[in-house]
Amino acid sequence: MMKIVIDAMGGDFGPEPIIEGVIEALNEEDFIPVLVGSKDEILLYLPEYYIDKVEFYESSDVIEMSDIATNVLRRKDSSIYKSIEYVIDNKADAIVSAGHSGATMALSTLRLKRISNVLRPGLATLMPNIINDSKTLLLDVGAVTDCSAENLYQFAIMGYIYANKILGLENPKIGLLSNGEENSKGNQLTKEAFKLMSKLSYFKGNVEGNDIFTGDINVVICDGYSGNIVLKTAEGVVSTIFTLMKKQIKKSIPAKIGALLMKKKVFKSLKKEIDYAEYGGAPLLGINGYIIIAHGKSNSKAIKNAIFQAILFSKSQINIHIEEIMSKKVF
Amino acid sequence: MMKIVIDAMGGDFGPEPIIEGVIEALNEEDFIPVLVGSKDEILLYLPEYYIDKVEFYESSDVIEMSDIATNVLRRKDSSIYKSIEYVIDNKADAIVSAGHSGATMALSTLRLKRISNVLRPGLATLMPNIINDSKTLLLDVGAVTDCSAENLYQFAIMGYIYANKILGLENPKIGLLSNGEENSKGNQLTKEAFKLMSKLSYFKGNVEGNDIFTGDINVVICDGYSGNIVLKTAEGVVSTIFTLMKKQIKKSIPAKIGALLMKKKVFKSLKKEIDYAEYGGAPLLGINGYIIIAHGKSNSKAIKNAIFQAILFSKSQINIHIEEIMSKKVF
Repeated sequence: MMKIVIDAMGGDFGPEPIIEGVIEALNEEDFIPVLVGSKDEILLYLPEYYIDKVEFYESSDVIEMSDIATNVLRRKDSSIYKSIEYVIDNKADAIVSAGHSGATMALSTLRLKRISNVLRPGLATLMPNIINDSKTLLLDVGAVTDCSAENLYQFAIMGYIYANKILGLENPKIGLLSNGEENSKGNQLTKEAFKLMSKLSYFKGNVEGNDIFTGDINVVICDGYSGNIVLKTAEGVVSTIFTLMKKQIKKSIPAKIGALLMKKKVFKSLKKEIDYAEYGGAPLLGINGYIIIAHGKSNSKAIKNAIFQAILFSKSQINIHIEEIMSKKVF
Repeated sequence: MMKIVIDAMGGDFGPEPIIEGVIEALNEEDFIPVLVGSKDEILLYLPEYYIDKVEFYESSDVIEMSDIATNVLRRKDSSIYKSIEYVIDNKADAIVSAGHSGATMALSTLRLKRISNVLRPGLATLMPNIINDSKTLLLDVGAVTDCSAENLYQFAIMGYIYANKILGLENPKIGLLSNGEENSKGNQLTKEAFKLMSKLSYFKGNVEGNDIFTGDINVVICDGYSGNIVLKTAEGVVSTIFTLMKKQIKKSIPAKIGALLMKKKVFKSLKKEIDYAEYGGAPLLGINGYIIIAHGKSNSKAIKNAIFQAILFSKSQINIHIEEIMSKKVF
C-alpha cells in the first residue's frame, strides 16, 4: 500500500488540522500515513480507532514560519528534516508538509536532490478559472525568486508533463506570463525565455495576468517573484470584493435578504471554486521525490486534498518522464 | 482659464466617448478643451452649443493600438504627436490621451523631455482598497519594463510627492512590492532598491500583492513588468468572480431574486468602487508636462474623470517639487 509521509507538526495551526485531514483522507482512500512529529502530541488529536492505521516517526523540533531557511540543514530533529529522512531510508512514496515552505524546498533539494539535468525545481499551484472543472497550473510560485531563462524553459517542460500526466490534459497549452500578448512584449528575462520556449510545440506564446483565469491556457510560466505577486494580488482582490460587498449588504435590508437567498447556491459554490482548500497543495517539480507543499493555513480539507494529490503525484511516476526528457540535450 | 489638450482620436472606440467625456466635463468645470484630431469627425459628435467652448487643432493621422511605438516620432500628423506639439508651442496646461499608451509615453519623453535628474518616467495608477474614499497608488505600471534600482527609488520619491500634493495625504506611506514582507525578501532588483529606499523616512519596507488592497500603505512601488501583472491579474480575478457568480445565479430562482435585491445597493456600488472609469487615468510622472494616460477602453465617464485629474495634476505644479528634490544628490 502507498505510504505518504506527513509532517504532522508543520503548519500555522499545529497538528490538529493536519491529523484531522489525515483521518478524513483515511476515511476515503487506502494508504498508510507516516505521521512525523511528537507522538504524544499527535495522540491528543488521533482517535484510538486510527492508531493502528498509521505509523509514527518521532521528531522533537519544529521549524517555525519565522525561522530562516538557511539554518534548516543543521536542525536534524525537525519534523520536516525527519520526514525527508524517512523517505530516503524507508522508500515512502511521497511527502506532504504544511510547514515552513522555504525550509521544505531547501531540504528537499539538498537531501533528495534534483532530477538529473534539472537546474532548479519549480513550485506549481493550481489557480481557478471560469471553465467548469478546469484549473490553470501556475509555476514557479516561490521556489526560484531570480530565475534564468533556462529555468523558465525547464518549468515549461515540467509543467507540460504535470498537466498531461496528472491533470489528464491531452494537449496542454503553455503560456509565458508577460506584460502583453504580442511576441515583442516582456522583460529581458521573458524575452530570452520566449526564444527558448519557442522550440516547444506546445508553447502558445505570451499571456497576461488575466489569461490565467480564462481557461484558454493550461499552464502559465513565470519566475518565483512574479508568481508570488500573482497569488497575493489574486488573494487581495478576492478578499477586497467580499469585504466591500459585506459592507454594502449591512447597510440595506433588501440587500441582506438578497444575500441570504444567494448564500447557499451562489456564495458557497463560489467559495468552493476559489478556495485553495479544494485544490490540495503545490507540487514541487524537478526533485527526486514527490513533495506536496500545503498552505501554512491549511484546514483539514486542504490537508486531505493535499494527501490525495500526493497519492496521484506519486502514482503517476512523472519523475521518470521528466528525467527522460531532461536527459536529451534541451538547450 | 486652464487649457487641456485632448487627443480626440485615440482610444479603442474612436472619438465618440472622448467627445462625450469632454462635454460631461465642460458641464461641471470651467476649462478650455483643445480637441486634437479631424475636425470634421469631431463635429459629428459635438453639439453646436459646445462649438465655441472648445478649440480645434487639426491632425490627419491616428496611431492604432496595433502600431509599434518606435515609429511614432516619424508620424508627425498623428493626433498624439500634434497634442504634444500643441503643448510645446502654445503652453497648454495638460494632455489627456486614451490612445496608444506606448506611443504617448515615448513621444512625451522624447519631445517634452524628462525633468532634470529623472532617469525614467513612471506611470502611476490608482487601485481600489477596502477603506472608504481611499485609493492606493501603484507605479510603475508600464513605462519601464526593465527597471534599475535607481528607477524604483525615484518612483518612490515621485509617488510620495503625488500622494502628498494631489491625493492630499499628509504622510503617505510607501511600500516596495516584494514576495514577502520581511526585509530579506525580494529579487535582486528589489533587494537593491530596498537599500536605496531605506534612506527615505516615508519608506515602510516590503509589501505583498494583497497589501495593495488593504489601505495600510498609500503608494506601492514596482517595475513596469510586475505592475502590469498586478493590473491584469486583478482585472482577471474581478471578471472571474462575476462570471462564476452569474453562472450560479442563473441556475437558481431564489438566487435570481437575491441578486435582484442586491443589485442596486451592493453590485452597483461595488462596481463603482472597482471601476477604473471612476478613477480617471494614469499620470505619467517625471516628464516636463502634465500627461494623463487614459485606458484605451475609456467610456465618457472615464474621460471626464481623466480631464478632472489632468486639471488637478496641472494645478498642483508638482513638477516643480519633483525637480527640486531630484536636483539634490540623491544616490
